[in-house]
Amino acid sequence: METLVTPALLLDRNVLDRNISRMRSRAGGLGVALRPHLKTAKSIDVARRISRPQPPKVTVSTLAEAEYFAGFGVTDILYGVSMVPSKAHRVFGLYRRGAPVKLILDDAAVAAELNRLASQASITLDVLIELDVDGHRAGIECKDGRVEELGKRIERASHLNLLGVMTHAGESYHCDGRQALEAHAETERLGAVTAAARLRRAGVPCEMVSVGSTPTALAARDLSGVTELRAGVFVFFDLFQVGLGVCGHGDLACSVLATVISHNRGRGRMLCDAGGIALSKDRSTAQQRLDCGFGLVADASSGTLLEGLIVERVDQEHGIIPVRSNADFAAHPVGSRVRIYPNHICMTAAAFDSYHVLSGGRLTNERWLRCSGW
Amino acid sequence: METLVTPALLLDRNVLDRNISRMRSRAGGLGVALRPHLKTAKSIDVARRISRPQPPKVTVSTLAEAEYFAGFGVTDILYGVSMVPSKAHRVFGLYRRGAPVKLILDDAAVAAELNRLASQASITLDVLIELDVDGHRAGIECKDGRVEELGKRIERASHLNLLGVMTHAGESYHCDGRQALEAHAETERLGAVTAAARLRRAGVPCEMVSVGSTPTALAARDLSGVTELRAGVFVFFDLFQVGLGVCGHGDLACSVLATVISHNRGRGRMLCDAGGIALSKDRSTAQQRLDCGFGLVADASSGTLLEGLIVERVDQEHGIIPVRSNADFAAHPVGSRVRIYPNHICMTAAAFDSYHVLSGGRLTNERWLRCSGW
Repeated sequence: METLVTPALLLDRNVLDRNISRMRSRAGGLGVALRPHLKTAKSIDVARRISRPQPPKVTVSTLAEAEYFAGFGVTDILYGVSMVPSKAHRVFGLYRRGAPVKLILDDAAVAAELNRLASQASITLDVLIELDVDGHRAGIECKDGRVEELGKRIERASHLNLLGVMTHAGESYHCDGRQALEAHAETERLGAVTAAARLRRAGVPCEMVSVGSTPTALAARDLSGVTELRAGVFVFFDLFQVGLGVCGHGDLACSVLATVISHNRGRGRMLCDAGGIALSKDRSTAQQRLDCGFGLVADASSGTLLEGLIVERVDQEHGIIPVRSNADFAAHPVGSRVRIYPNHICMTAAAFDSYHVLSGGRLTNERWLRCSGW
Repeated sequence: METLVTPALLLDRNVLDRNISRMRSRAGGLGVALRPHLKTAKSIDVARRISRPQPPKVTVSTLAEAEYFAGFGVTDILYGVSMVPSKAHRVFGLYRRGAPVKLILDDAAVAAELNRLASQASITLDVLIELDVDGHRAGIECKDGRVEELGKRIERASHLNLLGVMTHAGESYHCDGRQALEAHAETERLGAVTAAARLRRAGVPCEMVSVGSTPTALAARDLSGVTELRAGVFVFFDLFQVGLGVCGHGDLACSVLATVISHNRGRGRMLCDAGGIALSKDRSTAQQRLDCGFGLVADASSGTLLEGLIVERVDQEHGIIPVRSNADFAAHPVGSRVRIYPNHICMTAAAFDSYHVLSGGRLTNERWLRCSGW
């Protein structure tokens, strides 16, 4: 680890595998398929570890991710962001290379235009209706009659094939405590299942009922009527998820390796070379019980948290860490290294092109590449 | 612009050139050289436009940037982050290819170790002493006797060549109003010039006196004794700089082109496909008079701000924009495009691999690549 260029993104494969097992067990126990959201990992290596020995079945947040995974032969892809017609040509490209990406819609005009374009391209697009279970972002509210209306329109469209419904209970990120999370998971399930039932009663087939967010996926007690579970950050977890109570510090698979680059004894702080780009400016823990600043500092080799050492502030390439006492200067001389656990790993990982893989607490020679961009 | 994949980073070349002229005039008027900080633009095209017809003379925030610029023949590079010995091998590589990167130091032990490594490599490293003028991050306080001590040590070191002193008045980002900025610029100048004078009195040569931050560079009334000015964000400016009062909205050279991907009439908001990765999670305007959320929304083709339309919240690939009235839904149908001016362009641009260049308000066929990583 001493030779890595810092800042570097570390991934503990053992923790990753444990996190994957946990989510697979949950999905298995609840009787639903797992369709991980690869927006977090953006890595074929991670995707394969989740699904093995089966081929990966993924959710993606960008068409660049879809193209990346299709390039590795992944064919079962759900694009989890509202589709718009201007992106149709790239989707057609994916269909033509054997990756019939499932699309999500909440708008009749978009459905009509996509159908027109698909018809011109002689391609039939697989689509799901996006539902809004908690007001978090997009989708039609589950009880809104527009669900059936849109379902019927899609059914009638010559080049659209309705697979079912999907939703994401994003407001689960603001739940306080286990009970609230369980209740929110049930809201997510019930909303999706009810909308699916209404579609079926209206004579519209609705095979897939896709729900998920890491917190609700881990809290759900029952997923009757749901066919698949989507979750992303569970593979790595992060400080925000610790704050939510869905994991512990020992479940954090990713950290940023940084070098201490300056001591400022007069002002009682150290500087490291992981700043706002490497850690991201995410401050999601600011609203939680434990505000983790821009990340918690840990021992570089063991990954053990150094309680009370926090990245308090970041500039673009500087992380500012107030010391607890002068002993910290001695323990962390300029040139030494620390690990930093970030608030929100989806944002932090996005700054890096690869993971340096650890196993048994040691750096392996594996480096897993990530995709990026749009 | 209709065919660009969104989110896309737009750069208005005319505004860029105007911003460059403004800073060049200032540096010229104040009698100092301009050494732009390319941490913002990370682009050889931008670097060349700043310096032409002279070859670029740059500041960088990472060794990856140094290597990138050296690859284009840039030889006058200042690495503006505290140097540590573990990065020496890459610096030696730069020296060997004819790019003798200037390094900054604030630590005697680092100086000694760098000298040892440089001696082994038979390379003499050009270094500056980093000064702390306002407690912002690294550096030795200007009045601290350690400035002369370190200066003498470097002078005695066989393979270190002391060029001078440098500082960055980063606390200028918290100044309120023109007067405070002018005063802060003078604090920056005076601290650096005084430390340089003390070094010279101690018999240590100090040719370079390098200061700068965009706000102080634009506010300074006098830079006597300073030899060069560093500034980065001035090339593009951003909403935070508007809030500081050092530029206006018309000076914003960069914006993110996004597609409206969903209408949520029930909840009175639109969603676009520029989220937390494309815009960054930077919330620096939250502390200013006008909190711009995660960015201000503008007309896609003209770039004119749509007053009151703000990206209020972001998920990874979603920007949530509350509408002002239902008329916004009609004006911005799903599939239409908007531009978003970000809070902090250094962070926002970091998510993109290139700039799509506009001129005369229209998209050109120029696409300027950026470097990234470390």
